[in-house]
Amino acid sequence: MAEKKEAFVKEITPQSEDFSRWYTDVVRRAELADYSPVKGCMVIRPYGYAIWELIQQALDRRFKATGHVNAYFPLFIPRSLLLKEADHVEGFAPQVAWVTRGGNEDLEEPLVIRPTSEAIIGTMFAKWIQSWRDLPILINQWANVVRWEKVTRLFLRTTEFLWQEGHTAHETEAEAEEETLRMLGVYQDVAEHELAMPVFAGRKSESEKFAGAARTYSIEALMKDGRALQAGTSHNLGQNFARAFDIQFQARDKSLQYVWGTSWGASTRLVGAVIMTHGDDSGLVLPPRIAPYQVVIVPIPRGDWRETVLPRARELQAGLLNAGVRVMLDDRDAYTPGWKYAEWELRGVPLRLEIGPKDIERSQVVLVRRDSREKLAVPMDGVARTVATLLEDVQRSIFERALRFREDHTTCASSYEEFRQILEGRPGFVLAPWCGTEECEAEIKSETQATIRNMPADRGTPGGRCIRCDRPASVDVYFAKAY
Amino acid sequence: MAEKKEAFVKEITPQSEDFSRWYTDVVRRAELADYSPVKGCMVIRPYGYAIWELIQQALDRRFKATGHVNAYFPLFIPRSLLLKEADHVEGFAPQVAWVTRGGNEDLEEPLVIRPTSEAIIGTMFAKWIQSWRDLPILINQWANVVRWEKVTRLFLRTTEFLWQEGHTAHETEAEAEEETLRMLGVYQDVAEHELAMPVFAGRKSESEKFAGAARTYSIEALMKDGRALQAGTSHNLGQNFARAFDIQFQARDKSLQYVWGTSWGASTRLVGAVIMTHGDDSGLVLPPRIAPYQVVIVPIPRGDWRETVLPRARELQAGLLNAGVRVMLDDRDAYTPGWKYAEWELRGVPLRLEIGPKDIERSQVVLVRRDSREKLAVPMDGVARTVATLLEDVQRSIFERALRFREDHTTCASSYEEFRQILEGRPGFVLAPWCGTEECEAEIKSETQATIRNMPADRGTPGGRCIRCDRPASVDVYFAKAY
Repeated sequence: MAEKKEAFVKEITPQSEDFSRWYTDVVRRAELADYSPVKGCMVIRPYGYAIWELIQQALDRRFKATGHVNAYFPLFIPRSLLLKEADHVEGFAPQVAWVTRGGNEDLEEPLVIRPTSEAIIGTMFAKWIQSWRDLPILINQWANVVRWEKVTRLFLRTTEFLWQEGHTAHETEAEAEEETLRMLGVYQDVAEHELAMPVFAGRKSESEKFAGAARTYSIEALMKDGRALQAGTSHNLGQNFARAFDIQFQARDKSLQYVWGTSWGASTRLVGAVIMTHGDDSGLVLPPRIAPYQVVIVPIPRGDWRETVLPRARELQAGLLNAGVRVMLDDRDAYTPGWKYAEWELRGVPLRLEIGPKDIERSQVVLVRRDSREKLAVPMDGVARTVATLLEDVQRSIFERALRFREDHTTCASSYEEFRQILEGRPGFVLAPWCGTEECEAEIKSETQATIRNMPADRGTPGGRCIRCDRPASVDVYFAKAY
Repeated sequence: MAEKKEAFVKEITPQSEDFSRWYTDVVRRAELADYSPVKGCMVIRPYGYAIWELIQQALDRRFKATGHVNAYFPLFIPRSLLLKEADHVEGFAPQVAWVTRGGNEDLEEPLVIRPTSEAIIGTMFAKWIQSWRDLPILINQWANVVRWEKVTRLFLRTTEFLWQEGHTAHETEAEAEEETLRMLGVYQDVAEHELAMPVFAGRKSESEKFAGAARTYSIEALMKDGRALQAGTSHNLGQNFARAFDIQFQARDKSLQYVWGTSWGASTRLVGAVIMTHGDDSGLVLPPRIAPYQVVIVPIPRGDWRETVLPRARELQAGLLNAGVRVMLDDRDAYTPGWKYAEWELRGVPLRLEIGPKDIERSQVVLVRRDSREKLAVPMDGVARTVATLLEDVQRSIFERALRFREDHTTCASSYEEFRQILEGRPGFVLAPWCGTEECEAEIKSETQATIRNMPADRGTPGGRCIRCDRPASVDVYFAKAY
């Protein structure tokens, strides 16, 4: 049994040996996703999709609570529409897929498969919006999008991916900015309270902003290899798309005005972020709030366990289900308890509940935490309450662990020499003053591979000097090597 | 006010004048969907999408309760994979969209946008299935699909549409047949108990079956213009795809076997079916179970209503929300109550709750049913219970009304002359014996436009003779003109 477990875990490369291989090993062994016969496209397997469904629900609840409604727009965008917003087409045209034939005929105008939907939604907004009374429009779409990628990675960067994209139109610039920041806040809330993943929320630099936006904000998480990952973006589009797609309304003063727009998105990439924030050498560590199974019950097959242990395990399962806990009873004959322990650790189930003949004698069960591996014998009576408390504790503990990791890996650099040194190895975030020029930003990137992740809203740089050029700095920014 | 209401309703063509125009008028005026700049593709607007979300939840709950899990497979199918199953490619190749360029390069092998996913999922099943222990695999996918259509109609037939497609693999033929019928039963259950739409469940003829299936079953509903609409299909794929995609497993007796497959789908077309099953000349009539708003509260703006009526309306709203009722309070200043009545009737909200100063004096509210237009003054106390009871009654009543309509429009024909006569006008279903040959089926179609919808499982034809050729009949089938 011990041997089997050993063999099992060996299939996963240790993080310290090769983080990137560790990641792929975990994704595939835990059956989160698989490669497909289509280049750059992945299959999201049921276990991975179940995590995504829980993330979706967490987001969708908050979208609805903030007044948004869901809708669905076409997958295809006629080429002429994509071309309307100059920056947008420049940003996206090189990475789109083209449909040139439908049925048995060549198309007169080729269609782009949406890389994002501003162009098609803007066209519809122009049709729907007449007066200030029609505003705001607060729409979200759950959809697949396609961006032709050269180098792909399961969940993190694939040619097709699933996401949500919010698109809104407002009467005033101030309302659009407020909406942009509100949705950034929703992303931060979901990241921190559902995914247990601390993030820095802030504004992107000009060079990193969305093609066509006035301002882009992002949340940035830190992966266990010290690289940052952009986990959600929120764009204030200004009037750029309104002008390109002629989205005008009669204002309260009867004048004709362009609407102010926003768009914001988060994707299946979040599943990858969760894996790399919490996982360890035994596999996944899932935050209870988005774990498809929060508890796995493993009955210990001793003696006539099918008559003695299994009925109690079933009662426990029913009691936990009843208490709203997502629970799986692994009563498979073909596998030993040891094999099951390793399997469900690999799959990141937050709590394991073991029950055998001795436990029944003692009216207890054994609970094992995935995060700390702590083992607790607890009374069978009231086990649902104990489980609920423990799940909350696991949720909090892994957030705090991730937060400590980020704190340990966020440094301030006072000289460029120091800055470059930090950025070797597994650096994390480096907070440093920046002069605000694209030249310095580009040079830093080519010299260190680090990019500006974002600029925190609450930090000025009184008297600071640019880490690269030593001119007076305009702002402190987070640098990191990023996914 | 009365004038405004008149003008409002006039925008919808009466059903008796032109059913097809009535349908389009309702879809557009109720803001369920809109035409898009992409030929053949529609935009599902928030109100229409909210109906779809409720239908999705009703299906998804049942899929999960019957042991299915969700997953996601690529949008693209390499041409070579589509070509593997001969009947399948013959059925679908003429109506697919082709991606021939990605990024700035022409593709070596063109990709098809999935018209359905048997080919890509079959490929993955071949990879995942080794042994009988891996079976059954019970997977569902929520996705968009594309079929290049020449003539399109909002919800009913569009180039892109949203659906779910179940794909399963089994050890034995019997299990696959059982699964096929189980999911047909799930569709019937959702149609009848959620959409309040009676359906005939039965088997399709050979000529109408899914390209690549061994047997296809369907549920068929009856629209108010007397035409049938296929509302869901369930396919027993036999071993056809297993052979084409080499999905083999080691059986219990160690022999190598092909799996037995099923697939089944239902789509956004169901929204169109609901509209045409229940709607009337004032617009939509929504079944409470899938109505985005089950109750609309219209406060009567008399005197200082913002101080007197509105707070009570808000209390009622909170009480109903609390009781799990989907409720909207229409407190807009810019519209009269009469306008609001017409607007929410058009949108098919099952119950309207009116409250004015006089109602408050009498501690009552007025409830108006959308289906019967019945008006009831009921005590404000316990209104949530009254509403719940009424909603159930509306759900049942509109099902019964649709059932009576179908009974009135389902006839048996004893001669071909009679058969042809019935099929003029608004015929409904005609149950008639059929010899089982494709010749008779094709001739009937070209002579009457009627097709075989399906064959009920429970009806033989002892001594019957084919309605067309008078030879001994093998089965009684439902004929109808169909969407």
